[in-house]
Amino acid sequence: MKNNNEIKILKHKSIIKFEGKDFLGEVGIDGRIFKALTYARISVGVISQQSAENGLSVLVNESDSEKAVNCLINEFENERKSGKVNQIFSVNNVSVLGFVAKDFNKILSELARNNIFPLILNQVASENKVNIVVTSSQDQKAKNIIEAEIFAKPKTVHLAMIGHGKVGSVLIDQVLKSAEVIRNRKKIDLKIVAVANSRKMVFNKYGFDESWSDDLLVAENVSNMDSLIKFSQVNQLENLIVVDNTASTDFVKKYTLLAESGFDLVSSNKIFNTLSISEYRDFRHVLNKKNKKYLYETNVGAGLPLIDTIKLLHLSGENITRIKGVFSGSLSYIFNNFSVRVEKFSTILKEAMEQGFTEPDPREDLSGNDVARKLLILARELDLSNEFTDINIESLIPNQLAHLDKNDFLDNLDDLDAHFEEVKENQKENHVLRLVGDLHGDLQQEKGELDVQLISVPANSALGQLKGSDSIFEIYTESYGENPIVIMGAGAGAKVTARGVFGDILRLSENK
Amino acid sequence: MKNNNEIKILKHKSIIKFEGKDFLGEVGIDGRIFKALTYARISVGVISQQSAENGLSVLVNESDSEKAVNCLINEFENERKSGKVNQIFSVNNVSVLGFVAKDFNKILSELARNNIFPLILNQVASENKVNIVVTSSQDQKAKNIIEAEIFAKPKTVHLAMIGHGKVGSVLIDQVLKSAEVIRNRKKIDLKIVAVANSRKMVFNKYGFDESWSDDLLVAENVSNMDSLIKFSQVNQLENLIVVDNTASTDFVKKYTLLAESGFDLVSSNKIFNTLSISEYRDFRHVLNKKNKKYLYETNVGAGLPLIDTIKLLHLSGENITRIKGVFSGSLSYIFNNFSVRVEKFSTILKEAMEQGFTEPDPREDLSGNDVARKLLILARELDLSNEFTDINIESLIPNQLAHLDKNDFLDNLDDLDAHFEEVKENQKENHVLRLVGDLHGDLQQEKGELDVQLISVPANSALGQLKGSDSIFEIYTESYGENPIVIMGAGAGAKVTARGVFGDILRLSENK
Repeated sequence: MKNNNEIKILKHKSIIKFEGKDFLGEVGIDGRIFKALTYARISVGVISQQSAENGLSVLVNESDSEKAVNCLINEFENERKSGKVNQIFSVNNVSVLGFVAKDFNKILSELARNNIFPLILNQVASENKVNIVVTSSQDQKAKNIIEAEIFAKPKTVHLAMIGHGKVGSVLIDQVLKSAEVIRNRKKIDLKIVAVANSRKMVFNKYGFDESWSDDLLVAENVSNMDSLIKFSQVNQLENLIVVDNTASTDFVKKYTLLAESGFDLVSSNKIFNTLSISEYRDFRHVLNKKNKKYLYETNVGAGLPLIDTIKLLHLSGENITRIKGVFSGSLSYIFNNFSVRVEKFSTILKEAMEQGFTEPDPREDLSGNDVARKLLILARELDLSNEFTDINIESLIPNQLAHLDKNDFLDNLDDLDAHFEEVKENQKENHVLRLVGDLHGDLQQEKGELDVQLISVPANSALGQLKGSDSIFEIYTESYGENPIVIMGAGAGAKVTARGVFGDILRLSENK
Repeated sequence: MKNNNEIKILKHKSIIKFEGKDFLGEVGIDGRIFKALTYARISVGVISQQSAENGLSVLVNESDSEKAVNCLINEFENERKSGKVNQIFSVNNVSVLGFVAKDFNKILSELARNNIFPLILNQVASENKVNIVVTSSQDQKAKNIIEAEIFAKPKTVHLAMIGHGKVGSVLIDQVLKSAEVIRNRKKIDLKIVAVANSRKMVFNKYGFDESWSDDLLVAENVSNMDSLIKFSQVNQLENLIVVDNTASTDFVKKYTLLAESGFDLVSSNKIFNTLSISEYRDFRHVLNKKNKKYLYETNVGAGLPLIDTIKLLHLSGENITRIKGVFSGSLSYIFNNFSVRVEKFSTILKEAMEQGFTEPDPREDLSGNDVARKLLILARELDLSNEFTDINIESLIPNQLAHLDKNDFLDNLDDLDAHFEEVKENQKENHVLRLVGDLHGDLQQEKGELDVQLISVPANSALGQLKGSDSIFEIYTESYGENPIVIMGAGAGAKVTARGVFGDILRLSENK
């Protein structure tokens, strides 16, 4: 018995194209074309003619292509002179894939998402038979995609992991660990085919396993996105996602090129979303045009479901009137502890540093810039046009400490104590200090008001109840009235951030 | 100048099908076919032949179809006798649509999602020219979909709103109010084309405006899903979503039929998801097979982003170890107030009834069944196989009041007071009462443990801090450790529930 589900692939074919002016469909033209080919003893494969436009394409063996063009040129000599026939020429180096598929359209959108656009495509629905013609350089990739669909094989998603610091390496481990369950449950086969740091890059088209870091150690490729793009093309890889777990300002400049080259993007890196509003919007236009997606749920609140929630509320017409909260894990820890313990500010700060909550130079946290960036990202989700420079940031670093080099600063942490002790003492009773980001004002205007400041709140309020290094976000909207939606939990940390990035990867994979 | 973007539509065509055994592609066969048609003076339109399978289809005018079949039968008389040619026949009543499209594949998936599968489909990529042949009964719908794509016109999404009680009518208003912004920003045109209650149903293929309720008032159609399906077919409506804002046990029986008829589903109605696990899973298989989606974010926690968050965490391999919280707005109000005020339980209960927080018969709240249903829905998101009967529910209704009729029960609310006063008094200091749902146990097993019970918690805990009629959900996972993700806010109410349903509609519309 013939296996109906086999994918037939015929290589070394040529397309003979015949283009005329509004005369195809005239009685007899088709007859003359095929008679001429018959006399030349040329076997014809796929035929495609369109009634509403002018063009007929037939497929022949590559070895017959010159002969076919010549015999048609002879047959239609008069029509060519009169201009009725414009062009007769061949397109070489193509392959035909023939298969039987019920959900043919699904296959086509999978192919398109992977930048494969068949040169010719014939389908006869009643038998579910399909022929597509593609350039030989894409035939294997096309075959893989079609096989995945018709045999309901797991769809392979190819991941390029850029950055393998804390978040990146935990994510790679999480993906390797969950891959089998996801393959079984969702028919999605996640393969990590590239890992890069700022210097080196390593590829494996079959997918890395737990020894990826050894492979990277001995890698000799310089880290370079052009190599990644070339690697994906040479190996005809479908369903590409590049995952940015760096904090690199350079790498984000490659986003546009990657989207244009067929990659979706997932990023824990906040930098792109805090560039100028024009760069922010230009990239959205590219994504839209190329039908590519860019997800970054972890830019604010790590794995907490913040950005997606705000996006949907905003789009459904819910009037978001204010977003306020403690956005930073390190500053959460510092003020949660400083507010209730009888310790010097510098003591608490050193604790936070020892526990790895702060950046190596804690001024990056104390400057308020990280909170400001997160606030800006949320504002832009509401279609506000704010720039980073619009944000009112209360820096916690006194002027005399701002310009020291890092080690001098670390030697003089005590200089912070008097100021913060005074702020603490000047609060009302049962109040605590919190470093909050606050997006408010009339958010129907072009720009909102963005403040990063140290405030004093009642200890029994939601903000005042915050513990450990948790983040909290209060989303005020018209329908929810005075009681906001509150989302709270670990808003930083490698594990939860990696899990959030993984969530974005799955969101993309499920819609592929 | 010719407008390249025009969609040409040719009606009254027939497909002539010619099927043989492995001999197409032989030199001369095509020549004989077209010679025979030429002699019969039949003009040929679209031609489609496939190399890897046996079949050639040509398009002719419907008036020529009989003649075409006969002349081919004559030409291939010998081959028919020998069995080399199996069949020659015509398919009448088809239309050709010809157009130029860059993202042709997008168009095809749009067509497929709308149950349009072209009978013949020819594409020549270099010129982006496409021909599709469809049955005449689908040609207008196909044209609309193609136009929306190639002119980047807003894509129309057709909504059928079932139920126009509190949530349903607020949702209709929200959709009408936001439609223009969504059309401009997202190129999605939301049209409400059907509104139904349990008795009547009204249709408007152009979309209802604010006067929908007047239209329903004078409607004469009996509410019936077969009519809805027929209406969608007769009017060739694409992108169909049925929205269930009823609490009907009957209507959920129609879900499978609707999915099979091309509708996606959005539901605030919890009933389907609490049927037996086999019905629950059978429906998921149908959805999967038909490539349809079913979203129900508002089943638990109204507009709070709970179900989507749990889904993604679970799928990304995050080990969810416990979900616990106050799931019911009415019971939240009752115990938040009873715990801190010096009032009788019945007094607080009456307040809750007066403010519209409870069902007309408050025993439906006090029974714990509503909380139990929500708990079951969350458990099933984690792939647990629990049934409703597996849930340990602590009912708050004493036996002697359980079987009274409603009015007798309402006359005897005082009988509740002694018991709850005792429970309140027996707490530790600074503790408060909360009615919680708790999913725990080893959630890697087939079933988890589901408890609905009244517990006493410290007043300064997250649960203890709950205010008003807010809901709170604590999601404990391996990565988040001892500090859960907390999602809190209004978990009931028409406005926020409607906004959550709207969010689901947008999730579906964006992926269409």
